[in-house]
Amino acid sequence: MSKRFMSMRNLKFTIHEFIGKNIKGLTPAGKTDIKSTDMILNAAFEFAKDAMHPLFEEMDRHPPQLCDGRVRVHKDVRKIMQTLGDDGWISATFPEKWNGQHMSAVLFHAVNFIFSAANYSAAVFQELTIGAAHLIHTFGSETLQQTYLPHMLSGRWQGTMALTEPEAGSSLGDLITSATPLKDGSYAIAGDKIFISAGDHDGVDNVVHLMLARIKDAPSGVKGISLFVVPRLRPDRNGNLIDNDVTVNQIFHKMGYRGSPITGLTMGEKNACRGFLVGEPNKGLMYMFQMMNGARLDVGTGATGISTAAYHAALDYARIRKQGRSISDKKSIDPVPIISHPDVKRMLLFQRAVTEGSLALILLCGLYDDLSHELREDQREKYALLLDILIPVAKSFPSEMSILSTSQSMQCLGGYGYCDDFPVEQHFRDTRIHPIHEGTTGIQGMDLLGRKVRILNGKALVLLMGEIEKTIGEAREHAQFETASEDMSAVASTVYATTQTLFGMKNDRGEEAYLSNATIYLEMFGYFIIGWLWLVQAMVAKKQLMGKKVKKTDIRFYEGKIKVQEYYFANELPKIQSLAKILTRQVPVTISTREDHFTN
Amino acid sequence: MSKRFMSMRNLKFTIHEFIGKNIKGLTPAGKTDIKSTDMILNAAFEFAKDAMHPLFEEMDRHPPQLCDGRVRVHKDVRKIMQTLGDDGWISATFPEKWNGQHMSAVLFHAVNFIFSAANYSAAVFQELTIGAAHLIHTFGSETLQQTYLPHMLSGRWQGTMALTEPEAGSSLGDLITSATPLKDGSYAIAGDKIFISAGDHDGVDNVVHLMLARIKDAPSGVKGISLFVVPRLRPDRNGNLIDNDVTVNQIFHKMGYRGSPITGLTMGEKNACRGFLVGEPNKGLMYMFQMMNGARLDVGTGATGISTAAYHAALDYARIRKQGRSISDKKSIDPVPIISHPDVKRMLLFQRAVTEGSLALILLCGLYDDLSHELREDQREKYALLLDILIPVAKSFPSEMSILSTSQSMQCLGGYGYCDDFPVEQHFRDTRIHPIHEGTTGIQGMDLLGRKVRILNGKALVLLMGEIEKTIGEAREHAQFETASEDMSAVASTVYATTQTLFGMKNDRGEEAYLSNATIYLEMFGYFIIGWLWLVQAMVAKKQLMGKKVKKTDIRFYEGKIKVQEYYFANELPKIQSLAKILTRQVPVTISTREDHFTN
Repeated sequence: MSKRFMSMRNLKFTIHEFIGKNIKGLTPAGKTDIKSTDMILNAAFEFAKDAMHPLFEEMDRHPPQLCDGRVRVHKDVRKIMQTLGDDGWISATFPEKWNGQHMSAVLFHAVNFIFSAANYSAAVFQELTIGAAHLIHTFGSETLQQTYLPHMLSGRWQGTMALTEPEAGSSLGDLITSATPLKDGSYAIAGDKIFISAGDHDGVDNVVHLMLARIKDAPSGVKGISLFVVPRLRPDRNGNLIDNDVTVNQIFHKMGYRGSPITGLTMGEKNACRGFLVGEPNKGLMYMFQMMNGARLDVGTGATGISTAAYHAALDYARIRKQGRSISDKKSIDPVPIISHPDVKRMLLFQRAVTEGSLALILLCGLYDDLSHELREDQREKYALLLDILIPVAKSFPSEMSILSTSQSMQCLGGYGYCDDFPVEQHFRDTRIHPIHEGTTGIQGMDLLGRKVRILNGKALVLLMGEIEKTIGEAREHAQFETASEDMSAVASTVYATTQTLFGMKNDRGEEAYLSNATIYLEMFGYFIIGWLWLVQAMVAKKQLMGKKVKKTDIRFYEGKIKVQEYYFANELPKIQSLAKILTRQVPVTISTREDHFTN
Repeated sequence: MSKRFMSMRNLKFTIHEFIGKNIKGLTPAGKTDIKSTDMILNAAFEFAKDAMHPLFEEMDRHPPQLCDGRVRVHKDVRKIMQTLGDDGWISATFPEKWNGQHMSAVLFHAVNFIFSAANYSAAVFQELTIGAAHLIHTFGSETLQQTYLPHMLSGRWQGTMALTEPEAGSSLGDLITSATPLKDGSYAIAGDKIFISAGDHDGVDNVVHLMLARIKDAPSGVKGISLFVVPRLRPDRNGNLIDNDVTVNQIFHKMGYRGSPITGLTMGEKNACRGFLVGEPNKGLMYMFQMMNGARLDVGTGATGISTAAYHAALDYARIRKQGRSISDKKSIDPVPIISHPDVKRMLLFQRAVTEGSLALILLCGLYDDLSHELREDQREKYALLLDILIPVAKSFPSEMSILSTSQSMQCLGGYGYCDDFPVEQHFRDTRIHPIHEGTTGIQGMDLLGRKVRILNGKALVLLMGEIEKTIGEAREHAQFETASEDMSAVASTVYATTQTLFGMKNDRGEEAYLSNATIYLEMFGYFIIGWLWLVQAMVAKKQLMGKKVKKTDIRFYEGKIKVQEYYFANELPKIQSLAKILTRQVPVTISTREDHFTN
């Protein structure tokens, strides 16, 4: 198995040189300097390498089992959760009161990236716990916080997000799990949930579901949904844990991401399931949505981590495996390493473009998140809006592209890539969940085109275009990036004009026509954003190359960065042109095709 | 599990109405009329449905095992092979002498499509046997034919293609398996082979490897490779089968396509392995290449079959699964079937465009194959050239697009698609082998741009463009297809101009630069060819719609066909523009990037 699963050099470049460049003159969020940031990254990497990565295959080959109503996971999950709790990783982003360090979002996502690249299934347990704990921390009462947070943040209790129901997948307004008020202030919960990640397992002492349910007589649809804490074991008055009537009714057998148990749950079979309201009634979806940005970034991070690990496996193989001769030197007797073949380099450049571009996007979102909290009140809105409009891209671009990227990793290994002696087939399977969970790609498209580009009369889009224009302006001043700045400027105009055309379509032909190709709009937007981030990265690299006494390995690294930017602008950015044409031609075929046209 | 795995209506449309249209005035190859063709298709379908499809899941969940040096496969493989032998499916394309019916290539590929859609792993055993038997039949001595063909064609002996070696994957010139001439005219074989499909199993009484090896003192490289029959058990003078020293040294554990055993073989461990020369020495690769077209079409057919089955599973689900409301009718109380959502229809249209377009291409190749054999001598070259230039496309377009198509099938099912309660996750895993085996996509690109568009000064390309121009001319005469004919004409010009630009690049910058983006050229070419075939299909459908007394279900079917063409021209054909731009901009980044640029 490939030992290398990520590049620390590239992660540090992305944090210190790419993101760092953007935070000059501002308070770096979380107030961590380069040295302490690196200490944290190195510690995360060591743990990922020693404790998580060695289980990558094993957790896949021995997936969780449902035995006598309880889920058994790999025995090391308990150790991992406890260490992540004891060493402060789970509580890192929380305030001191909860043993936290106010870790910045940038650093948090960087750490998650490391864990995901090492072993996505193993990383998910803590990630979900952090998300659930944040919900309790932000919206829950002091009692709820005191009861649950210490156990969750120490890695002894698992947290989950329990949204999906059998009859209401992406359509949360249709959920029917019921909550009946009881005299003691708690609620009797009854209903079914499906696809609950880490919904039960024996690597922790308890599981705490952050669950959406409908209080009796609440309004129908999304306006009548409330958020509850529903533990598997409920602390009684004396602090003893008693059964809370949450049953695991099934465990899903998945193609990949197999180390993490995805469960179906039944609440209230014996009419003894209690839930505890978080915040106010009927505001559950609003609360959940405020945490959704984080969950969606986690998915983008997971996809980026997996694709990165697959890329490194492909790179290792391409360097060692000898096959064929160079076309320009056919007389050579010995076969050459396949990395010499332009077509293999093309595949590797594609994987780097996707994975390092995605990482830059994720960490940029982290930065915007930090700035939207850390800056003076009157500056916050800008960054909150920038974060908002980028979220659907940061969720979907890494996810969708990871299918292609891990597929190209496999292609680099040929027949071996298809076999389980190498890790890439597992990466290919693992990553396929990402375009599905936490809102499918289709839903991200609707979010971008239906909401985000329209909020405040398009203010978020204008702000984003402004940032991109700044980069184009800078690039124009370097002879080396003149063509790239022109390309970027042209695609910016294309994206802007396409958006205007779609606005026009909305007025002429209504909302359904406007949104019918939202997924393609999202795809175009993704290529655009990643192009921007590659231009920034290349300019940073160029600047570093012009510095004094650059180390040899650094020269190769920075030159490599510029090569990937060249590749992206030559081979990926032009795709915007076709996607824009598809969008602006306005052929309404997906609307006019009727169900019975699929008769055959 | 979804019961439907293909549409017989669409297959018959493709054979009788799409291909049939092209064979007017010519002797239909194989001399089968519509009625007898349908009898054969129906019989194949019944067998596929009753004997192969029920094992689809089972063969995946219980893959072959290597026990005491022998490979154990699913117990029904023996029954399937024997029935396919006894009922004449394996011998169908052979002449009467060998119990065959001179089945046309069109019909043969149609039958293979049915089997592949039902259960690709189960279909492979006979497919490989047919390929190997054809090699013996075409190039082997009468003795070899008499010794091996009856057992292979009756499904009692398995045939394989044994090319790949550990140190020489796609680079066949490097193979080192040796053949030392013996006094009795046979050869002592020694060496190792890997990735040999159906290389050993207990569903047959013997395995016959068509193996490439190097005769002692033969020229180095591809010019010194000979073809041998190397059986697992060798008939002695009395007709008894004795061990031929072929050992299974491993079985590969694959991500998908798990029902079929892929093995590693060692020959001559005890110095007792005998091979029997097929044809003349040192012509092995030439013989193999003459059969390669068939093997590559089989791969395209496999990918098409798998994607088709996945599409039908997605279609079934999209019709039944209710979720969300229509955007144009938000007040509706009940959720609608997801097939009503434009984004879901877009995904289904994409899958149809890919799968039915691929099927049309495969059968068109079958037609050209038939015509290149059946016509008068002076007309044969045209169709042989048309077949030659389409082979890399017919191998790679279905294969590469099947990754995307089965992925979209999964996306239609959301979380359920990722779980093994539904068949699509297996389709997604199964089909991923196709861009790899029988020549990777990269190799197909080199074949198209490096050889096929250049043979006889570009004659094949000119002929192909001529056929496409004919279609454009016809389309121009129908008001309904005016825009489509313009689109097609524009992309034909683009493809032609791009090819010319690349020829220029070859002169200016040499072969390596010319071929460096061959894979992208192949991708562009694929979109182009499938666009052509959709235009033909839509025109056929239109003509049928204008006929008298068209049945209601036929109206829906033909209208549906036209919708898919509209979809393809709106959403897929425009991609040619971007790909052409990538190719003509000539950024040499994949050449100028050095190995050490990947340092990080």
